Amino acid sequence: MSQDQQQLPRYSGIATFMRCAYEESLEGIDIGLIGVPFDGGVTNRTGTRHGPRDIRVQSTLMRSVNQSTGIAPFELCKVADVGDALPESPFELERSHKSIQSFFEKVVEAGVLPISAGGDHSISLPILRALAKDEPVALVHFDAHCDTGGDYLGSKFHHGSPFRVAVEEGLIDPKKTIQIGIRGSLNHKEMWKFSHDSGMRVIYMDEFYDLGVDGIIKEIHKIVGETPTYITFDVDGLDPAFAVGTGTPEVGGFTTFEAIEMIRGLTGLHIVGGDVVEVSPPFDPSGSTALVGATMMFELLCIAAESLVARKDSLAC
Amino acid sequence: MSQDQQQLPRYSGIATFMRCAYEESLEGIDIGLIGVPFDGGVTNRTGTRHGPRDIRVQSTLMRSVNQSTGIAPFELCKVADVGDALPESPFELERSHKSIQSFFEKVVEAGVLPISAGGDHSISLPILRALAKDEPVALVHFDAHCDTGGDYLGSKFHHGSPFRVAVEEGLIDPKKTIQIGIRGSLNHKEMWKFSHDSGMRVIYMDEFYDLGVDGIIKEIHKIVGETPTYITFDVDGLDPAFAVGTGTPEVGGFTTFEAIEMIRGLTGLHIVGGDVVEVSPPFDPSGSTALVGATMMFELLCIAAESLVARKDSLAC
Amino acid sequence: MSQDQQQLPRYSGIATFMRCAYEESLEGIDIGLIGVPFDGGVTNRTGTRHGPRDIRVQSTLMRSVNQSTGIAPFELCKVADVGDALPESPFELERSHKSIQSFFEKVVEAGVLPISAGGDHSISLPILRALAKDEPVALVHFDAHCDTGGDYLGSKFHHGSPFRVAVEEGLIDPKKTIQIGIRGSLNHKEMWKFSHDSGMRVIYMDEFYDLGVDGIIKEIHKIVGETPTYITFDVDGLDPAFAVGTGTPEVGGFTTFEAIEMIRGLTGLHIVGGDVVEVSPPFDPSGSTALVGATMMFELLCIAAESLVARKDSLAC
Amino acid sequence: MSQDQQQLPRYSGIATFMRCAYEESLEGIDIGLIGVPFDGGVTNRTGTRHGPRDIRVQSTLMRSVNQSTGIAPFELCKVADVGDALPESPFELERSHKSIQSFFEKVVEAGVLPISAGGDHSISLPILRALAKDEPVALVHFDAHCDTGGDYLGSKFHHGSPFRVAVEEGLIDPKKTIQIGIRGSLNHKEMWKFSHDSGMRVIYMDEFYDLGVDGIIKEIHKIVGETPTYITFDVDGLDPAFAVGTGTPEVGGFTTFEAIEMIRGLTGLHIVGGDVVEVSPPFDPSGSTALVGATMMFELLCIAAESLVARKDSLAC
Amino acid sequence: MSQDQQQLPRYSGIATFMRCAYEESLEGIDIGLIGVPFDGGVTNRTGTRHGPRDIRVQSTLMRSVNQSTGIAPFELCKVADVGDALPESPFELERSHKSIQSFFEKVVEAGVLPISAGGDHSISLPILRALAKDEPVALVHFDAHCDTGGDYLGSKFHHGSPFRVAVEEGLIDPKKTIQIGIRGSLNHKEMWKFSHDSGMRVIYMDEFYDLGVDGIIKEIHKIVGETPTYITFDVDGLDPAFAVGTGTPEVGGFTTFEAIEMIRGLTGLHIVGGDVVEVSPPFDPSGSTALVGATMMFELLCIAAESLVARKDSLAC
Amino acid sequence: MSQDQQQLPRYSGIATFMRCAYEESLEGIDIGLIGVPFDGGVTNRTGTRHGPRDIRVQSTLMRSVNQSTGIAPFELCKVADVGDALPESPFELERSHKSIQSFFEKVVEAGVLPISAGGDHSISLPILRALAKDEPVALVHFDAHCDTGGDYLGSKFHHGSPFRVAVEEGLIDPKKTIQIGIRGSLNHKEMWKFSHDSGMRVIYMDEFYDLGVDGIIKEIHKIVGETPTYITFDVDGLDPAFAVGTGTPEVGGFTTFEAIEMIRGLTGLHIVGGDVVEVSPPFDPSGSTALVGATMMFELLCIAAESLVARKDSLAC
Repeated sequence: MSQDQQQLPRYSGIATFMRCAYEESLEGIDIGLIGVPFDGGVTNRTGTRHGPRDIRVQSTLMRSVNQSTGIAPFELCKVADVGDALPESPFELERSHKSIQSFFEKVVEAGVLPISAGGDHSISLPILRALAKDEPVALVHFDAHCDTGGDYLGSKFHHGSPFRVAVEEGLIDPKKTIQIGIRGSLNHKEMWKFSHDSGMRVIYMDEFYDLGVDGIIKEIHKIVGETPTYITFDVDGLDPAFAVGTGTPEVGGFTTFEAIEMIRGLTGLHIVGGDVVEVSPPFDPSGSTALVGATMMFELLCIAAESLVARKDSLAC
Repeated sequence: MSQDQQQLPRYSGIATFMRCAYEESLEGIDIGLIGVPFDGGVTNRTGTRHGPRDIRVQSTLMRSVNQSTGIAPFELCKVADVGDALPESPFELERSHKSIQSFFEKVVEAGVLPISAGGDHSISLPILRALAKDEPVALVHFDAHCDTGGDYLGSKFHHGSPFRVAVEEGLIDPKKTIQIGIRGSLNHKEMWKFSHDSGMRVIYMDEFYDLGVDGIIKEIHKIVGETPTYITFDVDGLDPAFAVGTGTPEVGGFTTFEAIEMIRGLTGLHIVGGDVVEVSPPFDPSGSTALVGATMMFELLCIAAESLVARKDSLAC
Repeated sequence: MSQDQQQLPRYSGIATFMRCAYEESLEGIDIGLIGVPFDGGVTNRTGTRHGPRDIRVQSTLMRSVNQSTGIAPFELCKVADVGDALPESPFELERSHKSIQSFFEKVVEAGVLPISAGGDHSISLPILRALAKDEPVALVHFDAHCDTGGDYLGSKFHHGSPFRVAVEEGLIDPKKTIQIGIRGSLNHKEMWKFSHDSGMRVIYMDEFYDLGVDGIIKEIHKIVGETPTYITFDVDGLDPAFAVGTGTPEVGGFTTFEAIEMIRGLTGLHIVGGDVVEVSPPFDPSGSTALVGATMMFELLCIAAESLVARKDSLAC
Repeated sequence: MSQDQQQLPRYSGIATFMRCAYEESLEGIDIGLIGVPFDGGVTNRTGTRHGPRDIRVQSTLMRSVNQSTGIAPFELCKVADVGDALPESPFELERSHKSIQSFFEKVVEAGVLPISAGGDHSISLPILRALAKDEPVALVHFDAHCDTGGDYLGSKFHHGSPFRVAVEEGLIDPKKTIQIGIRGSLNHKEMWKFSHDSGMRVIYMDEFYDLGVDGIIKEIHKIVGETPTYITFDVDGLDPAFAVGTGTPEVGGFTTFEAIEMIRGLTGLHIVGGDVVEVSPPFDPSGSTALVGATMMFELLCIAAESLVARKDSLAC
Repeated sequence: MSQDQQQLPRYSGIATFMRCAYEESLEGIDIGLIGVPFDGGVTNRTGTRHGPRDIRVQSTLMRSVNQSTGIAPFELCKVADVGDALPESPFELERSHKSIQSFFEKVVEAGVLPISAGGDHSISLPILRALAKDEPVALVHFDAHCDTGGDYLGSKFHHGSPFRVAVEEGLIDPKKTIQIGIRGSLNHKEMWKFSHDSGMRVIYMDEFYDLGVDGIIKEIHKIVGETPTYITFDVDGLDPAFAVGTGTPEVGGFTTFEAIEMIRGLTGLHIVGGDVVEVSPPFDPSGSTALVGATMMFELLCIAAESLVARKDSLAC
Repeated sequence: MSQDQQQLPRYSGIATFMRCAYEESLEGIDIGLIGVPFDGGVTNRTGTRHGPRDIRVQSTLMRSVNQSTGIAPFELCKVADVGDALPESPFELERSHKSIQSFFEKVVEAGVLPISAGGDHSISLPILRALAKDEPVALVHFDAHCDTGGDYLGSKFHHGSPFRVAVEEGLIDPKKTIQIGIRGSLNHKEMWKFSHDSGMRVIYMDEFYDLGVDGIIKEIHKIVGETPTYITFDVDGLDPAFAVGTGTPEVGGFTTFEAIEMIRGLTGLHIVGGDVVEVSPPFDPSGSTALVGATMMFELLCIAAESLVARKDSLAC
């Protein structure tokens, strides 16, 4: 289907991400929108495997130009829906991660910047394995949870631990990692000790409103600087009033407006990829969480397109 | 996307009808699966414009072979999702019908047999205008309502009247028309007089269980015979327990099992097209009505494929 | 609002029962449609106080003429929505019943035949106290439960016992009482002993399909005969697939089609009133149970209108 | 029904707007509460035709006195539910607008101030045609979208354009128009050019929190001054967390508290009418959006009653 | 079941409050988590009898340690789910209150601090009758309504009046009572006169954002001081966006984050008990309101555990 | 909690299966009700890990005595909720099955007959591994799918294959296996070849209504005879109108009434255990599927209790 689809009524046609063309070849694509329908790393409520499809459906509400920043991502870059990174063996967590990694390795090799829709948060690990093979990236991480937990239920690779493993494997630089929105009760007092010990900057909700969105944006830039940066947006960072369809909701989060403002504040970063994870449609009969996920994905797309163009120093992109 | 998609997990990938390839060209296609996202002819509850997308999503639950009949439509024929018949001017009923007709004229010219998903029932009229240009077709019509009403709210082209107009325009032969499942209260005693006066065979629910499904199948064959036949399936023919997401639900309808049995009983007919209409997803938070719509569309596809092959007398189809 | 409202689009206007005129005076009215928004007699899931309003809303889907029987109740009789029988003191069960009784006494005095929408099943008791003051009536009772239980949670007047009390108070004749659709597990083996001991005819679901709808209709006529008869329809008599929005759902009930057929089979009875109870909208996000309730109320209205005319032997009714 | 209904339990009785008396005559009424169940101008998700009924139902939660401002609208003025402005020909956008206009012309002639519940936003155009026949009014416009777009899908009268047409027809004074809450992506960079070129004051969400609610109220008074003013409240101005049941939700809007504060801040304006539009109940299984719509309508009613009394300088109002 | 259950996956096992051990004996327990499944005092939408069970289910999402305050309630105190305070006679309001009171008298006699989940707000009255037998307590009251109304529908003990009766019976000291979040329209101007006349500190939403959360916390401490204090949290104090599943939703409330911050600000008070009331699960298909209720209950538990330990001056608690 | 709980209002108290006592020791128990919250074997829609909890909640609607058969299971046997069979390592399918098997081995060793609630259908395999260690059992299998598929997505142990593996491992005797309700489209014509080749008796829905429930019961007895028999009830055997909350719904199934009749018809069999699987609550906002699951579990319990008593030839059971 062609990009002109964006001019048609949004209730019509095939639902690709942002109504972009669907492409099976990666050639010539600048930014690939990718689904990762995997929830085998979930520790409680499941269903995020249905996230990509519902985000595709709701993303038909997105339009072409970012009103606030003026960024027109589809003009700046060639953007396509390049399909799903599918686990060959969804019944086994580690083998699933291998399949996902393998998909993203091809994406990276083709020079395509990936913006993904999960899936549970464990998928960020195989994505980072593909993206940060050579040297660790910086990480901007929106979430209610640090996701730097340890072994749980017989595995260290579940959706509560990807960023501990990512540090251990040298994929992210903990000193260039900022975690925003952390809250919720803890299994034990040391639950997020790894974040603190490894030097991550952790902004709990208590501090969130002290700093304010502007303060947080400054903090992000200070921590991350010029380093190539990955952005991961877990929708449970938002308050459940805005995103009830998620596996581990935690009361007391930030708003969608604050989320959008923070993502827009990432302007100037060197962005190498991003994801929106933990949208679990079965837990939201209104469909609104998938709309929120699609909106965050659009904002990530805009900021990534801007970053890409800035780095390529080329209008053609 | 390729037809191989049917082997992937059904929660993955782009949602086309039955996970068929999406084709923008009609060339070489035997059966086209078509969405008609139009609900401008609705007299009460609206929302069927969202039917095609949700049917596409739920149709990913369909597989390749009909267990009961053994028909494998994708082997028998080249089947594709050929997109949506969109009204250029959705704000005006008659102009919308013109656009829809024009889409189907191209389909017919390309020799493609159309199986459509509505949309409200008024869309059957422009489809028939394209299909039955030269001579009237026979009609097998599953519905709670005869849809042969007259002027209402300033128009004669709404979703309660398409088959009256179709007779008046010579598109269907009323004597070769059978209407099955009729029930519900009437605005006035003569509401469906046109059906009776024009010679249609009307099977009310009272008679339905007297005849039984087998008796009804016989009746269909007797009425329709060898004439080229169009099949229209309004999901409100089903009891609301099976299809609550529809605009004009009428308590006391037939079951999905009975519906499937009736469609399978159409074997041997000369089928020229079919539609499944009046799926209104916003009125069914469980999504089940769209699944039912997808299932009926699959059954129509099977019976149409079989009919096509029988007529072409060709394995290549 | 005037009766002409029935010609307007059904999504428009004020929602009265069947879009009838709302009348604060009872004068000249033949049949009064009445809401009884009381659920203080419920032993488990609550919410039937919201039944009358939602049934009013869904009853806008009803039209003027019964397709199957040809009865046109609004032509035969003067039918009006005469408002709600409100408990003055909803916090106390017995005082609430007194208020409801008092409302219905006025209705009966005015010569108005009441067709009511509950409310929980305990409301049938005060209605019968108003209707059967002088001599006991016969009872046709559709339900999953006999509702002839004894004291429970400190009261004998809850929604599981109205018909035991009605017998004890001489309001219904147990030998002219038939209970249809009984099923579900029992608190103790003797739970419905009163029904059997008092001579009621109890048709369990096991027997239901042995007799068939026609057999049951015959049985009703045999039991009830010419006696003035009250009809009470508890929507939990239906299978939960048809009426999930109810307080005490019991899997394995009859269908709406069977229910409609049974009500239509009451033709010829001497009907003095009827109710549809136990619609609990909060437990049905699709709204379908209230539509089912409205449909049953319409069928009761038709059969009551016919009975009334037959007895008055007068076209003016 | 009489106004005393407001003393009864709010789950009881006929659901009129705010449980006001329903009046078919306009005589003697100061403020008319009006439903406009029309959604033929919608460009995406439909269903607002069901808004008036659901707002009526939820408005039974409203009481008599505004706690914050002390305004008691039903004491100050004679307020009635005067029914629905129905399109005679709902299948055609422009003819529908004519019918709606015609209804409001009678309202205006009778000296009744209209507070309406939509319906889609296109209905503001025929209302303004009735209200602003003689000279343009000022406009306070809460919305996520400027609704000053151009031709789309073959029409210039859809729900994305009423205020462009209203300027072109001289119904509103663009220099006395303020649009608040604008956000969401754009189809093209110039999408809201008309607002800017014509001199409207546009407050995007970016500016919203810079000004704060107090700043915005000041801005409204500055722009609008003493001019007779119409207020239009599109519920999609609110964040979807507060109003998910709408056709074109845009993440990142204001809260209901902020909305209420802004409406209360309109004290002192010369108000000639107002509407609450784009409540689409089928997209909100919880019913909350209609409650929000009812609340906004109540706040509009209070501020309008106050304005009316101030202008009439009469206790009798 | 043992407390170790908190280490198991949260979707597993029997759902007790916070996955605490369920204890039928009160011996040795410091804090008892108690359900009060009673909604016989409700004046509008019912269903809070289902609150305790759904809060138990959602409370499995709670963990062991409060991230923000570091409080580990299950280490500080022996906490148990001690079951439900059941009305023996749920059909009569006053007798129901007696049963509830009697349950809490045993709790108080056993030296157990009660944290309860309602049920409608009328349950606070019998709880206070048990807790404040000897002298009045101070009250921190989060709510949209003052609940100091008078007789309504034949009773003075409904869910709109418990704190008036509590003052009249000397159970709470009105001068040491603070009510936070009050808003919504009024039945008459004097609706909350009792609060003002008796000397309660009432913080309307208008003032709420002027004071800010920090200002309110100071105000609470100023009003309540060292007096033994009861905390009552009505979820309708929250905006419906956060807690739609409640009986009397009022648009324009505080957020869950603000609620949590306020409860955490109660540190240092002498807490004798608390409740979370008016969670009505049937009105929230997403289940989110019960999650919010569970979270508030967890925060109450933490602050009560801290207060208990501080007073007992004992690590063993 | 004690068994007396069954006398309390069903909305109160801790939700165990059928409100039975919860026992951590297996000693002295005849029949254990067990949850198996595992869905790691699912090939499409997930969520059955939430089945056991929701079935526990809805099972509070069950009472003590089977009305139709008179069986009083709690009098005949000691029945307890013995908790959940939890996978230690839920992220890996095969290791999960090992944990589940290990739980059931203890159950079998303790002489407890297990009636389980899943979880996905893959759990029947580890249960059978525990139950049928010594010799193969007969199998009565209600389902839309034969579940004798082969390798899929890298594993042979998923929820589409347990009974093929069970044959291969000698756990069930295919010649004493009957599969009832099979339907739905096929991935390839040979999808259920294994069932046919191994000698299972497969009753497709086509044949179902030819035989009728009585015919099927006879067929079951003929196939199974006196052999120790396991019963497995997949709720997707039911039509989605009765059980929409399931992972692989197939339109056109049997009704709950037919299901109950078939289970009751198993009287006289030698039953060694049973399960109800594939209840996925997130896909059913009404909660009805879990109620259906609880009802089927109750019917299994009754028939198992009867069988147990018959074999033990002992009133004490």
